[in-house]
Amino acid sequence: MPLVYADHVAAMPLHPKAFEAMVPYFNDFYGNPSSIHDSGEKAREAIEEARGKVARLIGSQEEEIYFTSCGTESNNLALKGIAWAHQSRGKEIIISSIEHFSIMHTASALERAGFHVVRLPVDGHGLVDPGVVEKSISPQTILVSVMQANPEVGTIEPIAEIGKITRAKNVLFHTDAVDSVGTIPVNIKELNVDLLSLSASQFYGPKGVAALFVRKGVRILPLLDGGIQERGLRAGTENVPAIVGMGVAADLSREEIPQRMSHLQGLQKKLTEGLPQRIPYLRFLGHPTQRLPGNVSVAVEYIEGEAMLLFMDMDGIRISSGSACISRSLKVSHVMLAMGVDAATAQGSLLFSFGMQNTLADVDRILETLPPVVERLRNMSPVYRKAMAKKT
Amino acid sequence: MPLVYADHVAAMPLHPKAFEAMVPYFNDFYGNPSSIHDSGEKAREAIEEARGKVARLIGSQEEEIYFTSCGTESNNLALKGIAWAHQSRGKEIIISSIEHFSIMHTASALERAGFHVVRLPVDGHGLVDPGVVEKSISPQTILVSVMQANPEVGTIEPIAEIGKITRAKNVLFHTDAVDSVGTIPVNIKELNVDLLSLSASQFYGPKGVAALFVRKGVRILPLLDGGIQERGLRAGTENVPAIVGMGVAADLSREEIPQRMSHLQGLQKKLTEGLPQRIPYLRFLGHPTQRLPGNVSVAVEYIEGEAMLLFMDMDGIRISSGSACISRSLKVSHVMLAMGVDAATAQGSLLFSFGMQNTLADVDRILETLPPVVERLRNMSPVYRKAMAKKT
Repeated sequence: MPLVYADHVAAMPLHPKAFEAMVPYFNDFYGNPSSIHDSGEKAREAIEEARGKVARLIGSQEEEIYFTSCGTESNNLALKGIAWAHQSRGKEIIISSIEHFSIMHTASALERAGFHVVRLPVDGHGLVDPGVVEKSISPQTILVSVMQANPEVGTIEPIAEIGKITRAKNVLFHTDAVDSVGTIPVNIKELNVDLLSLSASQFYGPKGVAALFVRKGVRILPLLDGGIQERGLRAGTENVPAIVGMGVAADLSREEIPQRMSHLQGLQKKLTEGLPQRIPYLRFLGHPTQRLPGNVSVAVEYIEGEAMLLFMDMDGIRISSGSACISRSLKVSHVMLAMGVDAATAQGSLLFSFGMQNTLADVDRILETLPPVVERLRNMSPVYRKAMAKKT
Repeated sequence: MPLVYADHVAAMPLHPKAFEAMVPYFNDFYGNPSSIHDSGEKAREAIEEARGKVARLIGSQEEEIYFTSCGTESNNLALKGIAWAHQSRGKEIIISSIEHFSIMHTASALERAGFHVVRLPVDGHGLVDPGVVEKSISPQTILVSVMQANPEVGTIEPIAEIGKITRAKNVLFHTDAVDSVGTIPVNIKELNVDLLSLSASQFYGPKGVAALFVRKGVRILPLLDGGIQERGLRAGTENVPAIVGMGVAADLSREEIPQRMSHLQGLQKKLTEGLPQRIPYLRFLGHPTQRLPGNVSVAVEYIEGEAMLLFMDMDGIRISSGSACISRSLKVSHVMLAMGVDAATAQGSLLFSFGMQNTLADVDRILETLPPVVERLRNMSPVYRKAMAKKT
């Protein structure tokens, strides 16, 4: 039976064209971009070419793109770099309560360092209300950070509207766009953002490389001190092959986004329609329409998501329950709790995240495989039997 | 004419076996190590296998190895992570004055954050005196950081002796071993170190991955907040292919160190003997015997190193002047200044750093190519003509 990989939120395959472009930088052009001889020059040119491609993907200027090692580093750099550079103006930071751990925990670290962190509530669909952002901004606020799309429940946030508010209030605005760039059109001008995190591995590029867009003129301090790479904002020898791969993946994304969206929306539609027909007591999570294409998040009541995952895995279907990081931490998702999903329901969450390799036949496999797994698990569950007894 | 690459301090080629091992993790096993399904499991196992190999290379336990994205990150994590975790005990850090920028500038960042930094002098050979370390330790000292080998001048520091002192004084000891691990035998027990930075790209592994050894029981805080990867010390999705490549490169290094040393020492000897026979007013830099195999550092008086580099590059010979980072920053090397080399002489420094692909024929090429370059440049130099006029 062929495998079905529907966990693209956790990891995506590397695009073969990106890999192909990386190979010579592993084996032939291994020079250090900081070297002034010819080997260094080749590596340097490759990095600048990739920077241009990443810039074009989000509509920024080349010199506004800074390469980092992962989305987590981009998010840490955005929050800490802005906090340290602007603390004399104020020590308040506003984030949403459904951010990725790399924002949540970075904000907590800043809190321990004396910053005040405001955590914005979300509604039942996981949406941040721009009106609430506006009311939350105080004269001490230096930065607002709201993710563009939440991978766990698929909801796309009203970033452009929030951006208008922060701009009018003269407060810096960062968005973690790690899960949206490459899947939906993202343009920093339309979004009115000052900083934006994006990660190659979330658009069929390699692991080990990401970027932070920092609008020209925005003062920010480095996280890693050392050499003068990335114009002094990110020290460390550049990961040349990975940066080259990110560039190619960015170019491919820019060209393919319309096809990607329609392909993913087709898979999403079929699964969204098929699941409730086959599984009772199923609840869709996140926003019904403002959502990431290819992302279907559900809570199967009266069951633990993790047990479903493992049974599905035995049948060759790879899905997740909440985000990959959260899966391993074995805690109830802070995203679901913030959305008002009760802990028992959140435990039964399942996340299907499709990619370009998935087919409608994969959706059929899921629709055939999941219902008997759910039935089997529910029959083993005393909570379910009790609930059913009550109903009859 | 074949190229001669003798700038291994700046960048090393990736070992073909390391690359081979990485390929499946780019193309087939792309799962997120944090996923609980089978794809995640495969990635997780690969990481733990690599961790074991890295641990064996330096004689540590597996769980004492934390993967990072580069040597600069390892050094930042060591200094900042220890400073923040131990600041209640004291706010003093001791470093040498010839450290890599990722130590020098990190120490300066800590200084701006209220820490007191002591910078130890070195002698004319670039050696730190363990007696001076001992005298410099105060009750406020929480960390001593001295590099194991300076890549720019090749000198190997008396780390084991310093380690005995720090242990006796109950002060933590970090060594930046980025330029020594894989070239000379490095064992954390013999060195008496509590933390040690090493980078894959300096032992024929890939760029974009490095590690920090942290002795079990040593309290340290993370630099990147977020997920619980690397037991909470380094958040961010793991760069699986690069980590796999680092593991293979570590294994190869462990097996090959004796051959590497004898090969590199052969090249070093030939160049060291040949250069002064062909070029007058040449000065060797760094320690004459306690030095990295394959590393030859010289100052050619009355010339600028950069001009020599460019002429040599035109003849297909890639060397450097100081470290790669320093080359691009166009400043006089702080290492040379700390060693008492005057600025004019330091400007004429050239660094030959050999690798396993170099041959004795490469040394011949250098010995043939450099003298006419030097002569040509000197004839163009008014300073040289003036100095010669004085002598005659």
